[in-house]
Amino acid sequence: MKKFMDYDFLLDSPTAIELFNEVKDLPIVDYHCHVDAKEIYEDVKFSSITAAWLGGDHYKWRAMRNMGVEEELITGNADEYSRFVAWATIMPYMAGNPLYHFSHLELKRYLGVDTVLNKNTAKEVYDKANLALKDLSVRKIIDKANVEVIVTTNDPIDDLKYHKLLKEEGYKVKVLPAFRPDKAINIEKPDYNDYIDKLEQVVGFKIKYLEDLKAALIKRLDYFVSLGCKASDHGLDYVPYDADMIGCAGGTFIKARNGEYVTQEQIDGFKASMVIFCAKEYAKRDIAMEVHFGCQRNTNTAMFNKIGPDTGFDCVNDNNHVDNLYAILDTLASEGALPKTLLYSLNAKDNALLISMMGAFNGAPFKGKVQQGSAWWFNDHKKGMEEQIAYYSAGAPIGTFIGMLTDSRSFLSYARHEYFRRILCNYLGNLVEKGEYPLSELDTLKVIARDICHDNAIAYFGY
Amino acid sequence: MKKFMDYDFLLDSPTAIELFNEVKDLPIVDYHCHVDAKEIYEDVKFSSITAAWLGGDHYKWRAMRNMGVEEELITGNADEYSRFVAWATIMPYMAGNPLYHFSHLELKRYLGVDTVLNKNTAKEVYDKANLALKDLSVRKIIDKANVEVIVTTNDPIDDLKYHKLLKEEGYKVKVLPAFRPDKAINIEKPDYNDYIDKLEQVVGFKIKYLEDLKAALIKRLDYFVSLGCKASDHGLDYVPYDADMIGCAGGTFIKARNGEYVTQEQIDGFKASMVIFCAKEYAKRDIAMEVHFGCQRNTNTAMFNKIGPDTGFDCVNDNNHVDNLYAILDTLASEGALPKTLLYSLNAKDNALLISMMGAFNGAPFKGKVQQGSAWWFNDHKKGMEEQIAYYSAGAPIGTFIGMLTDSRSFLSYARHEYFRRILCNYLGNLVEKGEYPLSELDTLKVIARDICHDNAIAYFGY
Amino acid sequence: MKKFMDYDFLLDSPTAIELFNEVKDLPIVDYHCHVDAKEIYEDVKFSSITAAWLGGDHYKWRAMRNMGVEEELITGNADEYSRFVAWATIMPYMAGNPLYHFSHLELKRYLGVDTVLNKNTAKEVYDKANLALKDLSVRKIIDKANVEVIVTTNDPIDDLKYHKLLKEEGYKVKVLPAFRPDKAINIEKPDYNDYIDKLEQVVGFKIKYLEDLKAALIKRLDYFVSLGCKASDHGLDYVPYDADMIGCAGGTFIKARNGEYVTQEQIDGFKASMVIFCAKEYAKRDIAMEVHFGCQRNTNTAMFNKIGPDTGFDCVNDNNHVDNLYAILDTLASEGALPKTLLYSLNAKDNALLISMMGAFNGAPFKGKVQQGSAWWFNDHKKGMEEQIAYYSAGAPIGTFIGMLTDSRSFLSYARHEYFRRILCNYLGNLVEKGEYPLSELDTLKVIARDICHDNAIAYFGY
Repeated sequence: MKKFMDYDFLLDSPTAIELFNEVKDLPIVDYHCHVDAKEIYEDVKFSSITAAWLGGDHYKWRAMRNMGVEEELITGNADEYSRFVAWATIMPYMAGNPLYHFSHLELKRYLGVDTVLNKNTAKEVYDKANLALKDLSVRKIIDKANVEVIVTTNDPIDDLKYHKLLKEEGYKVKVLPAFRPDKAINIEKPDYNDYIDKLEQVVGFKIKYLEDLKAALIKRLDYFVSLGCKASDHGLDYVPYDADMIGCAGGTFIKARNGEYVTQEQIDGFKASMVIFCAKEYAKRDIAMEVHFGCQRNTNTAMFNKIGPDTGFDCVNDNNHVDNLYAILDTLASEGALPKTLLYSLNAKDNALLISMMGAFNGAPFKGKVQQGSAWWFNDHKKGMEEQIAYYSAGAPIGTFIGMLTDSRSFLSYARHEYFRRILCNYLGNLVEKGEYPLSELDTLKVIARDICHDNAIAYFGY
Repeated sequence: MKKFMDYDFLLDSPTAIELFNEVKDLPIVDYHCHVDAKEIYEDVKFSSITAAWLGGDHYKWRAMRNMGVEEELITGNADEYSRFVAWATIMPYMAGNPLYHFSHLELKRYLGVDTVLNKNTAKEVYDKANLALKDLSVRKIIDKANVEVIVTTNDPIDDLKYHKLLKEEGYKVKVLPAFRPDKAINIEKPDYNDYIDKLEQVVGFKIKYLEDLKAALIKRLDYFVSLGCKASDHGLDYVPYDADMIGCAGGTFIKARNGEYVTQEQIDGFKASMVIFCAKEYAKRDIAMEVHFGCQRNTNTAMFNKIGPDTGFDCVNDNNHVDNLYAILDTLASEGALPKTLLYSLNAKDNALLISMMGAFNGAPFKGKVQQGSAWWFNDHKKGMEEQIAYYSAGAPIGTFIGMLTDSRSFLSYARHEYFRRILCNYLGNLVEKGEYPLSELDTLKVIARDICHDNAIAYFGY
Repeated sequence: MKKFMDYDFLLDSPTAIELFNEVKDLPIVDYHCHVDAKEIYEDVKFSSITAAWLGGDHYKWRAMRNMGVEEELITGNADEYSRFVAWATIMPYMAGNPLYHFSHLELKRYLGVDTVLNKNTAKEVYDKANLALKDLSVRKIIDKANVEVIVTTNDPIDDLKYHKLLKEEGYKVKVLPAFRPDKAINIEKPDYNDYIDKLEQVVGFKIKYLEDLKAALIKRLDYFVSLGCKASDHGLDYVPYDADMIGCAGGTFIKARNGEYVTQEQIDGFKASMVIFCAKEYAKRDIAMEVHFGCQRNTNTAMFNKIGPDTGFDCVNDNNHVDNLYAILDTLASEGALPKTLLYSLNAKDNALLISMMGAFNGAPFKGKVQQGSAWWFNDHKKGMEEQIAYYSAGAPIGTFIGMLTDSRSFLSYARHEYFRRILCNYLGNLVEKGEYPLSELDTLKVIARDICHDNAIAYFGY
């Protein structure tokens, strides 16, 4: 029996351990996350472990709701200690859950707490963790985690003030923005025109026609690029496309700006045309495009009305995304304008499908130009990662993979990179142990492990 | 090498065995099955092992058809011994099939037969099993299996005579009805009006308008409740919903009662409105709602015409159920009228999706109010159970899970609870063995195992 | 640690090894592939290992494109050695990929090369392999691989000249054609009329009406039968069906012949009607029908325009195939005209679904008349095979399974049968090791293994 989360955690063989030793100290390239650059610049501290863990982590909120914990103790006004105890109390019921591992990894790696968390140890852990947090600023966490690059996700109207200040300061860690123009594309949203009005303010000209919108986005994109932007992100829920209406995007935009009704077909045509427009601009600037889809958002209207979006009420959907995705990628490839593209589906049924898709759009001079991203959100757990890695290597050279990101709002989440690295090394090591990959190639396998854990991401984005 | 189906069957580690020892003698809560209360009341005996095994088990019929056995020996008039030999002959070809394990478990646990069944041992097993069955009434099986609660599935027009008699008798095992109003909802069926006519007879008033139908269902539901009903069941095949027609259910019902044509949209609107109506009534009475979907029924028309429904010709479908399911759950949650809900998809691609869905509709004061049900029907095998448990624990606290049911027509099927318990304990024990859950928390893990195998179901349904 | 691809490759237990020893020398029945009978008749040799491996294998081309290799080195005019080095260079990056195993198996089994292939060993392997290929004609490979039956895939207009010559010659290996009438069915294709014109030439009468087309296909089918045809194949991408238009196939055909516009509904009705027509003719002649679906073809238009179809730009799609598939199978079963049918989906989400489907259409006197085919194309790897075998045995008697085919254009691919046999034996052996199948039935398990690796296919097709 292995000790709980010991040096050989998730590593089932000597070769796996050897590979992990090769990569465990590599710097972290967190090429997609949702932390706030302001908190880095100001080097803030968490006021408490409750703030750090339960302040905004909707994964944990969900788990608590599943256990029947009162909302008062989740997003309500209960005191910090009570909320922490509520969390500690449900911990043991999460056997096999990534939150169980992530929480203990964070305690061990960043807070120096080696205690198993449960109702009985809650007080001890609370006190120890809070003491540790007194000394532990955001930048110290980043140092401890050995982070080299942090890519935040930003709206085009974001002034990127803190990215700029960090750059001016010469902060050793690259803190770069990713361009996420969803709000400029989601024409069906009731506050679309409000958003476009704000965009007008930022760019300093009127956005009446589609050409204006495009000019505005280009202006902002170039501003992002001036601050080191190498990545963009599109959150599509479903992948929009309408062959008939894609050419009518200009008219659709005018209608929307005038507050007139637009049909679903017009919406889909507009959105597809905008994704394609953006993609071409990314390609010109060597910016990678991340595409996230498969999410059913805000499924619980009552809770949405109470506490808003991104609070734990998004789910997986079962749409067929691929016809439209093929149409978009093919359009771009046909015009020689396909940027580097990372594909993320929230539904794990798409694993093998996306791996097959990448093979159809790749070629010189890029290694893994189009690729499936690592196990995302609800798939970000041991089984999810193992399956994604297994399907990837079964369907494409695993050596092309750019690996893990946190997708997180919390600076403590860097521990997930360790989690991923262990799972990856276990997979690769197991191949050698089972005679499926030659021991004589172990040095190359170490290179592959290093590539996936660090070097590929650096090369892919061009940091 | 392990001995065949020995004490450590499906248990790969000492911790798994220790956990299983903790739960193996817990009473069985079979909260969803299709046995007949009459057979319990009358304490019938099986006339033979052929009657017990091949009298109505369409799982076995399918297996025989797959092997090319003549229908005469399956559902035909062949003599009992020949039919048993036909089954015994194909047994060895089912390596890795749950029927292989279930059959041998039933022989071992209830019939005292330890022989491996095949063509050569058929006579011996037939004789021994028949001898054992001479003494073995339904109630003796229930005793042997240590069953505490049996929940049958009943139509609203069922008089529940035998549930009542069992209650009056003071039978120590709770035999409770579950309310399954499919026939009152499936407005598209040719015999719908015949059914409603029968319902009229039972309730003693005319059912002309939708309000009458609702009153009738409430009357029957309250009758069910008077006999301890704590659960309901909806078999939906696909999940119906039509936003435009859901408000027209009253008109749709009148049309159907008049024998007029109703459109697919009207059907879907009517059915969704009825599911929502029922759900609200369940919520008022603290009755759990089971929702089963993803089944393509009666796919082989020729065989349906020959031997009717539920004879082994249903299959899995690949519909996208979730948009409509979200709509129904959200409607109920918005009105504060969401009952405890168990979600079952016949298509295992929905595993992770349903786990994500439960998180969006849970909260105080319930633990696991909405949850994915255990691996159902075609998924009710080792791999299916393992995957369901793995996805559940990866996506939600496994400690919320209410565990196994037989969904069976046979009293011998209680052996499947043992099968499930072994697989569950193996999963949990493996976490400890691999250092993914601390040995120091083993006592809590035992509680979790006990909860999932017994206590959670008792608390969930309120037995 | 196991040695790389040693005698126990993919075999995790003594029982697995014992089972593999039982089947490893069985002749190969390659009941579906794409090799050219001409190359067998003429007993050609590969000019080089580059020609053998990279001449037409779009699996390898994809892998190279994924790694960013120049197209010049893939399908371009680069010299043979450079192309081989390009392939050798990316080999190590394919840890866990079937191409890594297939390539090394082919080197070991047919070319006597035991070297691990990488950039450094490229020259050595190139020279050794080319030397071996000097002596190694197609028929010698077939001998080495112990192939008993080869079933090529042929268009109805194919004259089958070389099948005939091989038959006349009395070649010991059965080289038989399979009938694949896709081009006669794909009425939506721009070159449909050209094809029908060619078919007119071959059959020697005008094809003006649907009855003519049917007569032509029957004539060709009977010709195929005269040369030993026992199998047919339909590549459907999506499964077509249109209940309203299926009766209008005659009119649709006339329109198409006249170059008039036909609607999508008419296309689907026509195609379904033709599949059903063909299936009935197969049933009359005891010919098995293979149905392949789930492929999104030619997704990259730019590359299609450059280098045509079947060059590595096909992908998996996510369509719901089953409603139409049920309709077609049910129609056939209702008329007592369902032929032996093998179902292949390119999307592995359909594994369990297809297994459930087979159970609904099987019965005496056939064993496994309708069955899911083995892991196909993008699923043709270790994990894909393991999952297909596991789902099959969980849902149907594994003893019915007719096992592996190469689906390949290369004579070196017979090594994949060994790969499959190892995975199968490991699965079966593991059941015994884990106490899930009795050791006392090992002899039967050996029969099952032999059946799946050889005997079932012989009996199924009637070779």
